[in-house]
Amino acid sequence: KRNLSISSACLEAKNSQKFPALDTFEPRHIGPSKTDQQYQLESLGYKDFDSFLKDVIPDSVRTPESQLMAFGSVNPNEKNPPVNYSESEFTTLANNVANQNKLIKSFIGMGYYNVKLPAAIQRNVLENPEWYTQYTPYQAEISQGRLESMMNYQTMIADLTGLSISNASLLDEGTAAGEAMVMLMANDKKKRKTFLVDKNIYPNTLSVLRTRASGFGIKIELDNITPELITKSAKHVFGIFVQYPAADGSIFDYGHLAATARSFNMHVVAATDLLALTILKSPGEWGADVAVGSTQRFGLPMGYGGPHAGFFACSEEFKRKIPGRLIGLSKDRLENPAYRLALQTREQHIRREKATSNICTAQALLANMSAFYAIYHGPNGLQEIANRIYASTSFLKSALESSGYKIVNKSHFFDTLTIEVESADKVLAKALDHGYNLRKVDDSHVGLSLDETVCDKDIQALFSIFNINKSVDQYYMEIATSEPNGNSASTVDNLSICSLPENFRRTTLYLQHPVFNRYHSETELMRYIHHLQSKDLSLAHAMTPLGSCTMKLNAVTEMMPITNPLFANIHPYVPEEQAKGYRHVIEDLQLMLTTITGFDAACFQPNSGAAGEYTGLSVIRAYQRSIGQGHRNICLIPVSAHGTNPASAAMAGFTVIPVKCLNNGYLDMQDLKEKASKHADKLAAFMVTYPSTFGIFEPDVKEALEVIHEHGGQVYFDGANMNAMVGLCKAGDIGADVCHLNLHKTFCIPHGGGGPGVGPICVKKHLADFLPSHPVVSCGGKNGITSVSSSPFGSAGILPISWAYMRMMGLAGLRDASKAALLNANYMAKRLSSHYKLVYTNKNNLCAHEFILDAREFKATAGVDATDIAKRLQDYSFHAPTLSWPIANTLMIEPTESESMYEMDRFCDALISIRQEIREIEEGLQPKDNNLLVNAPHPQKDIASEKWDRPYTRERAVYPVPLLKERKFWPSVARLDDAYGDKNLFCTCSPVV
Amino acid sequence: KRNLSISSACLEAKNSQKFPALDTFEPRHIGPSKTDQQYQLESLGYKDFDSFLKDVIPDSVRTPESQLMAFGSVNPNEKNPPVNYSESEFTTLANNVANQNKLIKSFIGMGYYNVKLPAAIQRNVLENPEWYTQYTPYQAEISQGRLESMMNYQTMIADLTGLSISNASLLDEGTAAGEAMVMLMANDKKKRKTFLVDKNIYPNTLSVLRTRASGFGIKIELDNITPELITKSAKHVFGIFVQYPAADGSIFDYGHLAATARSFNMHVVAATDLLALTILKSPGEWGADVAVGSTQRFGLPMGYGGPHAGFFACSEEFKRKIPGRLIGLSKDRLENPAYRLALQTREQHIRREKATSNICTAQALLANMSAFYAIYHGPNGLQEIANRIYASTSFLKSALESSGYKIVNKSHFFDTLTIEVESADKVLAKALDHGYNLRKVDDSHVGLSLDETVCDKDIQALFSIFNINKSVDQYYMEIATSEPNGNSASTVDNLSICSLPENFRRTTLYLQHPVFNRYHSETELMRYIHHLQSKDLSLAHAMTPLGSCTMKLNAVTEMMPITNPLFANIHPYVPEEQAKGYRHVIEDLQLMLTTITGFDAACFQPNSGAAGEYTGLSVIRAYQRSIGQGHRNICLIPVSAHGTNPASAAMAGFTVIPVKCLNNGYLDMQDLKEKASKHADKLAAFMVTYPSTFGIFEPDVKEALEVIHEHGGQVYFDGANMNAMVGLCKAGDIGADVCHLNLHKTFCIPHGGGGPGVGPICVKKHLADFLPSHPVVSCGGKNGITSVSSSPFGSAGILPISWAYMRMMGLAGLRDASKAALLNANYMAKRLSSHYKLVYTNKNNLCAHEFILDAREFKATAGVDATDIAKRLQDYSFHAPTLSWPIANTLMIEPTESESMYEMDRFCDALISIRQEIREIEEGLQPKDNNLLVNAPHPQKDIASEKWDRPYTRERAVYPVPLLKERKFWPSVARLDDAYGDKNLFCTCSPVV
Ligand SMILES: Cc1ncc(COP(=O)(O)O)c(C=O)c1O
Ligand SMILES: Cc1ncc(COP(=O)(O)O)c(C=O)c1O
Ligand SMILES: O=C([O-])O
Repeated sequence: KRNLSISSACLEAKNSQKFPALDTFEPRHIGPSKTDQQYQLESLGYKDFDSFLKDVIPDSVRTPESQLMAFGSVNPNEKNPPVNYSESEFTTLANNVANQNKLIKSFIGMGYYNVKLPAAIQRNVLENPEWYTQYTPYQAEISQGRLESMMNYQTMIADLTGLSISNASLLDEGTAAGEAMVMLMANDKKKRKTFLVDKNIYPNTLSVLRTRASGFGIKIELDNITPELITKSAKHVFGIFVQYPAADGSIFDYGHLAATARSFNMHVVAATDLLALTILKSPGEWGADVAVGSTQRFGLPMGYGGPHAGFFACSEEFKRKIPGRLIGLSKDRLENPAYRLALQTREQHIRREKATSNICTAQALLANMSAFYAIYHGPNGLQEIANRIYASTSFLKSALESSGYKIVNKSHFFDTLTIEVESADKVLAKALDHGYNLRKVDDSHVGLSLDETVCDKDIQALFSIFNINKSVDQYYMEIATSEPNGNSASTVDNLSICSLPENFRRTTLYLQHPVFNRYHSETELMRYIHHLQSKDLSLAHAMTPLGSCTMKLNAVTEMMPITNPLFANIHPYVPEEQAKGYRHVIEDLQLMLTTITGFDAACFQPNSGAAGEYTGLSVIRAYQRSIGQGHRNICLIPVSAHGTNPASAAMAGFTVIPVKCLNNGYLDMQDLKEKASKHADKLAAFMVTYPSTFGIFEPDVKEALEVIHEHGGQVYFDGANMNAMVGLCKAGDIGADVCHLNLHKTFCIPHGGGGPGVGPICVKKHLADFLPSHPVVSCGGKNGITSVSSSPFGSAGILPISWAYMRMMGLAGLRDASKAALLNANYMAKRLSSHYKLVYTNKNNLCAHEFILDAREFKATAGVDATDIAKRLQDYSFHAPTLSWPIANTLMIEPTESESMYEMDRFCDALISIRQEIREIEEGLQPKDNNLLVNAPHPQKDIASEKWDRPYTRERAVYPVPLLKERKFWPSVARLDDAYGDKNLFCTCSPVV
Repeated sequence: KRNLSISSACLEAKNSQKFPALDTFEPRHIGPSKTDQQYQLESLGYKDFDSFLKDVIPDSVRTPESQLMAFGSVNPNEKNPPVNYSESEFTTLANNVANQNKLIKSFIGMGYYNVKLPAAIQRNVLENPEWYTQYTPYQAEISQGRLESMMNYQTMIADLTGLSISNASLLDEGTAAGEAMVMLMANDKKKRKTFLVDKNIYPNTLSVLRTRASGFGIKIELDNITPELITKSAKHVFGIFVQYPAADGSIFDYGHLAATARSFNMHVVAATDLLALTILKSPGEWGADVAVGSTQRFGLPMGYGGPHAGFFACSEEFKRKIPGRLIGLSKDRLENPAYRLALQTREQHIRREKATSNICTAQALLANMSAFYAIYHGPNGLQEIANRIYASTSFLKSALESSGYKIVNKSHFFDTLTIEVESADKVLAKALDHGYNLRKVDDSHVGLSLDETVCDKDIQALFSIFNINKSVDQYYMEIATSEPNGNSASTVDNLSICSLPENFRRTTLYLQHPVFNRYHSETELMRYIHHLQSKDLSLAHAMTPLGSCTMKLNAVTEMMPITNPLFANIHPYVPEEQAKGYRHVIEDLQLMLTTITGFDAACFQPNSGAAGEYTGLSVIRAYQRSIGQGHRNICLIPVSAHGTNPASAAMAGFTVIPVKCLNNGYLDMQDLKEKASKHADKLAAFMVTYPSTFGIFEPDVKEALEVIHEHGGQVYFDGANMNAMVGLCKAGDIGADVCHLNLHKTFCIPHGGGGPGVGPICVKKHLADFLPSHPVVSCGGKNGITSVSSSPFGSAGILPISWAYMRMMGLAGLRDASKAALLNANYMAKRLSSHYKLVYTNKNNLCAHEFILDAREFKATAGVDATDIAKRLQDYSFHAPTLSWPIANTLMIEPTESESMYEMDRFCDALISIRQEIREIEEGLQPKDNNLLVNAPHPQKDIASEKWDRPYTRERAVYPVPLLKERKFWPSVARLDDAYGDKNLFCTCSPVV
């Protein structure tokens, strides 16, 4: 509640203004009003926040507020930056900063192209909270829309690559390439350890491959791959990597390579371009085993490098080895077809220290957008786009050659030309004068890649840049009339892909499923999108109290800048001075993130929390090598850690040794000390999540970290739970050397149904030199490791979201948010504690920002488990809390600060009512095998059926509390049959004939 | 379907480009592909479009295509403007044109203020197709969300104005004032005819009052109203009109005036400002009978004049006289509370020639947005905003006065100051230098109105403009320390509304209903908005085949420009050179609209079709007077005409004489000729809808119009059905003198749940001189009539939508759209004709763009009527066609070109299935009083109940066709009890205590 007094509120001099704006963001972001909070505190027995906080957070880790007053400014001239920006003030700021980016058209290519994001997809998906606020579809029954869309995505990837199976997206092209390499290595029967990489690939992909290779001890050989080379290397090489079309724009027929490789049981990875595949023979057809790439071209704005969906497709052989999430078709208990995550349990696919992949958050929203792009255009529309690009590239090439230019990729190409010039710099400068960015290949070569936005005007400009003194029309007529028969139809044929040799041309059909052939009008597309979303519960419907996921408000003002063309349409490789707006956002975020965490430098390359872990650990390793401690290879990790922790450690080349926890959920200090000292010589690192994954601020944390340091180890801090800490304690002060932050948790980037994410790491000074570099854009530390993702600043395109959040809240506002998050969790825990057992609390009976409800006893008393409770919650129109993590058969609840008293009470009421339903089973009033819980959820079809053989009424099934009659979100299918789905893996839409 | 051939499509030289863009809009807008259309034609027995069209449209009215090739350009330098723009090309164009507007901050006021539209409302309502694509909520059971929101709006207006009843919005402040005047006149027991208007009102409101007065023969007396004047005028004056706060910014206590008026049975209208009313005594409290105004200040962008919701509130006395739509609370057949349009049947509130109001389309979307604005801020938040405006105005006034300025409205004010200056022009010029627009009152007075966006920087600039050489901080400290006690708290008190005399201050509570006190966090607001929308069927769900309403695609690319700040935030009274972008859009639209209709000039003031009718007829009257034919006062109107036609004619001062129709639906030419000749001396006009409201292109239309002309009458052409004609025939060529176009039908402005609308009129040269003028902005004809709406170009803010549509389609594309609309209607009519009787077709058994299904026979055979079919359609997830208009107990179906074959077939299947259900009743298989139709619709609550006493299954009730199990939109209540609602009129949310 705002201050109600008439006379004072409006004139309070905040931010040193006499008439400060009233549209402050904080009261919009934080659910409970000040009055509500007072009530909450009292319900817990506290008079004020301070006494409450004292009981939640150990004094030893709490940072005095005086150290956390306000963010400064990255601009040295700005003396007193506003403490916080109101929403409208921020919008003005964001527009000003956006205007510091320059919209100069880039034909740089290299994996990033101008696109036309169809407006209908922008508005109905990217700008629609019912799409962007969802979590990963773990609760299949209330996520069928999203799951269907991801299935469409998988079908699209599988079809276009000509391979049988695709996952539901990876972080980007580079990491997808890395995953492919590692998957092949891990499955090589001969245990070979060398990966043969063709020279004609993107430098950023190579850089990520190098990084990934190093942790696994893979050797990368870079060469011009030939069948002979393959034959020669058969002993030590487990796989080869080619790019198709290649980096210089060439198209090669890799059929021979693939056949040769196969004969030595080597596998082939092709990095490829989906748009090119609409007209070129697919990798699956010429023999690749794995295809990777990015769907950026399918309508995803460049965003200065991301987020874009990395794709990964492979042959049947790797069906059960494929990294990442996979959507599968199964059926529900009413025998209706229904989609689900094929590998069901949360993170089950992350095999802890045995993992070869740590992928968790991926790029669901972007994958879905690109699937809709394909659906909207259909196979014919996509092919038209590709043809047009090919034709205009042909035309330009013909003009260049007729003007005496030498084209490096002379024979075959799709959209890219590499052109020999006298001085690349001069050409680039001239291009810039004309308002274009081209690619500098080397001093005497420039490259350019045309894309779906190219038009006559662009080609005309390119003519001028290359001193072709003709008009496009003239030259067009010229080559038309230079045909023997003098008619322009044959010009057209010459420019069309008909001029490609047969063996390059795609002859197989793709995207024949009706979903790609029905929604070509905007009305139909809009209805399909809205139909799908109507099946999915999102934050626009109800709280999604997923512990450890921090599902908070993603405010519109935060989201608006990302669709501003001045942020959306910037190529990652533009000269720095064209990206000043982005640079400002990045620097400002770095300032703010290091301020709240107490670190010295940051890196924004990692596209997820797990990617941050991997990056942080890789940086630790580089540091240790630099000080002659490269032999240190042991990483201690508590058993309570998230599965990505050991997986990331393993991937970074560490040997993981688990540390126990005590019965009260605390770290076993004894065990830690023993193991630290036992492995003192080889101790490299310790990974800690704080507050712990059990939702407790442990009092011993500082001591634990000291132990690690004493034994020569570095401390990695998993910042997934940062929402409990902002403005209250600093990881750096507690003793961490590096920490990642999930901007998609604490800092308001929406989850998008399973990504995008941003997992920047913050480091202490001694690690800063080793922060990841990039082969094209200068960034990272002096001795930076190779890249961890394709683009220099990762998913830069969505950084404005977190920037908006932090600048609108200000440091004090962020502290208020964390305080509210702690209070909300404890308020709920208190209300629920008389109905359920809480697994852990601290000595004052308090939790941090989340808490765990125990469902273990109910198996015996009532034959139900946490899953049944989760499914029954759907009937109450709620998304379940985090299920069976970090402890099996429990529910971990995290409300976040954005949830109101009203919503938390509604949720508590639901759980309390469910407890009563359990009691009825316990008391024998409902049978154990036929009751409200085990039959849950109850979709509409269930109650519409005449057959009703339940010991409870339909009303009770679907309206267990009266409010639901007014406001109910329905599961669209009955409970999924996991066993069936596990046995029968269908991961693409079945072709309908 | 696009052209699939690889070689030709991409190089076809359209728009003279060698590589034309592929994102052409036409195939996205038109539902059926070319292949589909071929199938449709064949199903009707035609080989091609030409032969089909020949049979639909009489040759006599068809314009040769050669006359309709391409739109030119308004820019004489642009020789070959593109024939059409692709979506991305249009977006570029729109941005360029937007950039021709200048964002200079306006403190001009006069009913238009800068606002902060909360981003959450912008994105979740204004940019959300589930809100903006809805039609007026005639089908209450699938519109409860919208209806609840409108109820919130009515409550807000009633509360703030202190009156007991509010309608659901009118077109703008000026027309609301006009409606008030006319309502009072019509209900004056003494039949007095003079309206006393205070001088201190906005000139635009006065201008609209004058226009409205003239048709009704009301005399307007303009004066400084005093109790003495009232007493003196008691004999002839029926009502008085004051503005509160007044135009110069003054606040007067009108209590005495009101009491005096009351004593003579005169009624009082107050034009007022909702924001001011949060701190000022309400008009209801000081004795006004009617309050009118605009909700623009509640978050509606200025948009160069509109659209904004005009509000209208009145005392209980006028409960059943109130113009426009009224939402009421009733109950459904399950006894659950449910909302509905209180005056149920379509247009029942428009009393044809007896009407005093012709309001049909209003401003639903804008009304809803402003209701959400109030909900988001709550009473306290609104008051804070008002206080802050008041405080900053106080502060500025104090500074001005201490610098020697004389303030005209010295004593009391809210946000507006009228300041005496040496040269107003010089001050305005200086203001412009500083980046501000102020109001020029006269040569020696300037005015300024502060608003919620004002900040220190603005006040500082105003200091400079008025040569106050102090900083805001300085002056603030100065007045603080000049207080006797020297502390700044008392400054604050002096600036706050505490400094207003008690008798001005609001002491009564408002907006106490929970809905205004619960949704103050963005999360809660978002969920409330999405909850409401989940109850409403919109174009995002299914076709809405409302005959005569043209519910076509409202494409995102069309919608995007309207939220561009460069269009959204322009004050209507800025100097023309700051609005060049808008002027371009207006001129270009005028060019295109007059091209397709064959007229010479256009006027954009009317905010709806009905307002267009009124305007056109008023222009005809002015013209006739100018040629000495002012005695002509008879308007012939076919009985088939829309209710607004006779209403508008009556309002414009004509005597309406109906013309009969024949049994085949055609105009009775005999009757027309007789009446035309009988009334030849007094024949003023004829109103014709073409194709007729019965959905037929009548062959005799030209002859009919000639008859009118021969007898000295002018022809008014109702363009509601223009979607049948664009590019095919021109109203001007057919013989019309004036016509209106519903841009919210044919030209893609979304219906928004009952508005906004734009109803421009196009006229022949002889009428152009009389097009409406505006008292502030020069526009209209040389001898233009007074204004028909408050702002010079009406709802200018949404004109970019139609502009986008027309420029992206091009003339040929628009013709294709009309052709597709005709084909779609005939395709459906053909499919349905073997199951239902079609009321009318032409001699070739064809309809135009819509057709009427007969349900009259079913009353006898099965006891069901068209309403039952309409309600049953809801169970099939469809919105009913237009019900019982223009013929009782029929359904009028208009698919538009945007609907796909798939959707049309789905709809036909539903109607065919319903016909089968009727047959079962006819055959006695289902009882007449308990069957699928009379019990329809079946909401979830219905089937969830244990009680099921129907002779059909639940499954059959809710899943009559299998597809519905996958994709179903549910009615949220059972059928409304209209009788109950009519008896018990509850039009505001009941206060919950
Ligand atoms: C504690 C913890 N660490 C790491 C991660 C991985 O983060 P991401 O999904 O962004 O890769 C998670 C994700 O939920 C987590 O909860
Ligand atoms: C034939 C006809 N004329 C006039 C109108 C009135 O138009 P508006 O609702 O824009 O005032 C309508 C509205 O449906 C109509 O169908
Ligand atoms: O609103 C209409 O009735 O058209």
